[in-house]
Amino acid sequence: MIETIAAQAKKASIRTATLRAEVKNRALSEIAQALKAGESDILQANQADLARAEKEDLSKPLLKRLKFDEAKLATAIAGVDSLLELPDPVGSTLKCTELDQGLELYQVSCPIGVLGIVFESRPDALVQISTLALKSGNAILLKGGAEAAETNRILAKIIYEASLQAGLPPGWLALLETRQDVKAMLALDEYIDLVIPRGSNAFVRFIMDNTRIPVLGHADGICHVYVDQDADPNKAVRIAYDSKCQYAAVCNAMETLLVDRLVAKEFLPRVKSEYDKAGVVLRGDEETCGIIDCAAAHEEDWRTEYNDMILSIRIVDGLEQAIEHINSYGSHHTDAIVTEDAARARRFLAMVDSANVFWNCSTRFSDGFRYGLGAEVGISTNKIHARGPVGLEGLLTYKWILIGRDHIVAEYSGPEARTFTHRIMDKEIPIR
Amino acid sequence: MIETIAAQAKKASIRTATLRAEVKNRALSEIAQALKAGESDILQANQADLARAEKEDLSKPLLKRLKFDEAKLATAIAGVDSLLELPDPVGSTLKCTELDQGLELYQVSCPIGVLGIVFESRPDALVQISTLALKSGNAILLKGGAEAAETNRILAKIIYEASLQAGLPPGWLALLETRQDVKAMLALDEYIDLVIPRGSNAFVRFIMDNTRIPVLGHADGICHVYVDQDADPNKAVRIAYDSKCQYAAVCNAMETLLVDRLVAKEFLPRVKSEYDKAGVVLRGDEETCGIIDCAAAHEEDWRTEYNDMILSIRIVDGLEQAIEHINSYGSHHTDAIVTEDAARARRFLAMVDSANVFWNCSTRFSDGFRYGLGAEVGISTNKIHARGPVGLEGLLTYKWILIGRDHIVAEYSGPEARTFTHRIMDKEIPIR
Repeated sequence: MIETIAAQAKKASIRTATLRAEVKNRALSEIAQALKAGESDILQANQADLARAEKEDLSKPLLKRLKFDEAKLATAIAGVDSLLELPDPVGSTLKCTELDQGLELYQVSCPIGVLGIVFESRPDALVQISTLALKSGNAILLKGGAEAAETNRILAKIIYEASLQAGLPPGWLALLETRQDVKAMLALDEYIDLVIPRGSNAFVRFIMDNTRIPVLGHADGICHVYVDQDADPNKAVRIAYDSKCQYAAVCNAMETLLVDRLVAKEFLPRVKSEYDKAGVVLRGDEETCGIIDCAAAHEEDWRTEYNDMILSIRIVDGLEQAIEHINSYGSHHTDAIVTEDAARARRFLAMVDSANVFWNCSTRFSDGFRYGLGAEVGISTNKIHARGPVGLEGLLTYKWILIGRDHIVAEYSGPEARTFTHRIMDKEIPIR
Repeated sequence: MIETIAAQAKKASIRTATLRAEVKNRALSEIAQALKAGESDILQANQADLARAEKEDLSKPLLKRLKFDEAKLATAIAGVDSLLELPDPVGSTLKCTELDQGLELYQVSCPIGVLGIVFESRPDALVQISTLALKSGNAILLKGGAEAAETNRILAKIIYEASLQAGLPPGWLALLETRQDVKAMLALDEYIDLVIPRGSNAFVRFIMDNTRIPVLGHADGICHVYVDQDADPNKAVRIAYDSKCQYAAVCNAMETLLVDRLVAKEFLPRVKSEYDKAGVVLRGDEETCGIIDCAAAHEEDWRTEYNDMILSIRIVDGLEQAIEHINSYGSHHTDAIVTEDAARARRFLAMVDSANVFWNCSTRFSDGFRYGLGAEVGISTNKIHARGPVGLEGLLTYKWILIGRDHIVAEYSGPEARTFTHRIMDKEIPIR
């Protein structure tokens, strides 16, 4: 059953890959209009989900994420509209090389194929990710959280029907409904090219542990701020505060504060008084506890993403130990140094093995919107394909197109072999 | 044991990532010299491997690949020398964006980290891949075939010792010796960032099926040539012949020839007479067997990589069926169309879902050297990270570096929020 759906998506992906920009944009327009027209149905479906969720005693934060009201719908529609303005990312010539006279090689951007998107709660994710997939010419299988079943069903129906009217091929989008479906999907590496999970750490790790399909995303966000011996104390307090308190429940918030021993006695009491006002619970190593009043941190704290107003603090013996700590205990997501010393900053930026490395600014900047990437597909701690905040380009790959005039390899071997010119050219190939 | 080696490689990779270009090039020079100086030891070790292999009745082709003589050593050393001329691929600013005044974002190329390279027989692969890793700032764990144990051991020793003298960190390269070691390595996704297998299909598939670490490579190379109704018959014969016969034992050789029904009666006898001269064994579908004398092809033939002078032939009902056949049975490696009709060619190039799609030239061009990529790391049929022939850039990723002057996110939210400038800048950041 799921295999049939996935095979159909694969087939559809060959068509979506070659859709003209106008067709994709017309589909996006019609989707935006259909979502507006369907507002009352959508809100009603969401009310049903909310009522059931309240009966089932869902937690407050989950209820908040589940809620899809007029304002959230308007934001989602604005997101769809904003995609209209972006240039078509498919079919760009990334590089053109003349291999020999009349033998030209083009590296051309193209969609990845079929995306498997698995997300928890938030129905806005369904709108965002399906329209991003459409713009980038990919087919998608979607699975949302069971709590949002009614809302997801109506959203997927509206988007799918509007897109078909605009010329998208049947089966390019499908909504999966059960956990069994997801398990089945994770096994279909023949049809699905990339899985993007959006949700809690445990959820993402479960996906990563249960598929051979490449996964784009991050499990943990254990971010650090290191306060160097040459840190400006005012900046250090501001950046340490913002990195923890500006929004504690997200992956780019700081979880561990590292402080150079040489400035710990001066810095820690100052930053503590700010954290106290915000209600941050501090857990320090032995030395920290000797300077400020806080609970004891244990080895496990260095590996913990609190996602909450809790912070672990460790005093380190200078830059090298800070780098060592971050590379050993961190999650390679986002880490910052506060210092006025350029040489030490550069060493930190070079040697911390994380997707995002910052100097004198808050870890909270690590985000696709703030980076100016447009729509954010997710944040990746992968080392391959895409790293850090990922925009639309994370949904693309490329193919090599070689155009000859009866060229054969035999002419390039043996005693009278022709040689390759390998000349970079400024040419584009229109393939649609 | 392997875990200790891998953890040490991970640690070393933080150092190799920041080595200056001069240090890496000095190491490459010293490696080239040491290989020259070690010639007699190397050839002697290879003689021992060959003697043992002959006793164990290894096949002729395997013996040929195992043999590492003066000529092969000279080629390997020339390969190392050629890396000296390449610019350092690490530390390039790929993009610079001003997020706001004094807040600058740099996307900078960097090594992937630790590579796990597993290769069969050919000892030259050890020299090539370890020096590519060095140039790109990666650490590596290497495992060669048991047949070449002595040769690999001396080569790894020479390369490792020469590199340490030039300043490479201890543990940046390690040679694994047993199959158990490889199995253990494939489980160490905490330390190893990318696995690159080089060898037979069965071997690559085994690796892919037994690790959660991303794998760069291809299992099968089932390539097609489609002869369209508007093919120039002379070109069609030349290209079909070259794609099969120029070197049949490689992944970019054609395995299935697809012919438009409208030209089959004219084309097939002509191409058969060429194939007969070369000794190619033909297997055709029913219709093909009605036109030329050949064995019957079965469904299984469409999925088979012969890697030999055998070719399956199918008559198709035009372009759409050819595309459908290639996307269903192919391995998404390299596929070519022969036609004088530009519209049909463009449709083929757009809709065939393969890493390399060709028009009027031989599938055998699908190769890093011919593409002008310099050293080839491998050919990938992955949809993510790198596709088709992969050069040095396949061993690189990037990190995001953000440099501020006390910038915090709180200033970009709320009623008096600052806005981002997101201005693309032509600036570079030197981080080493």
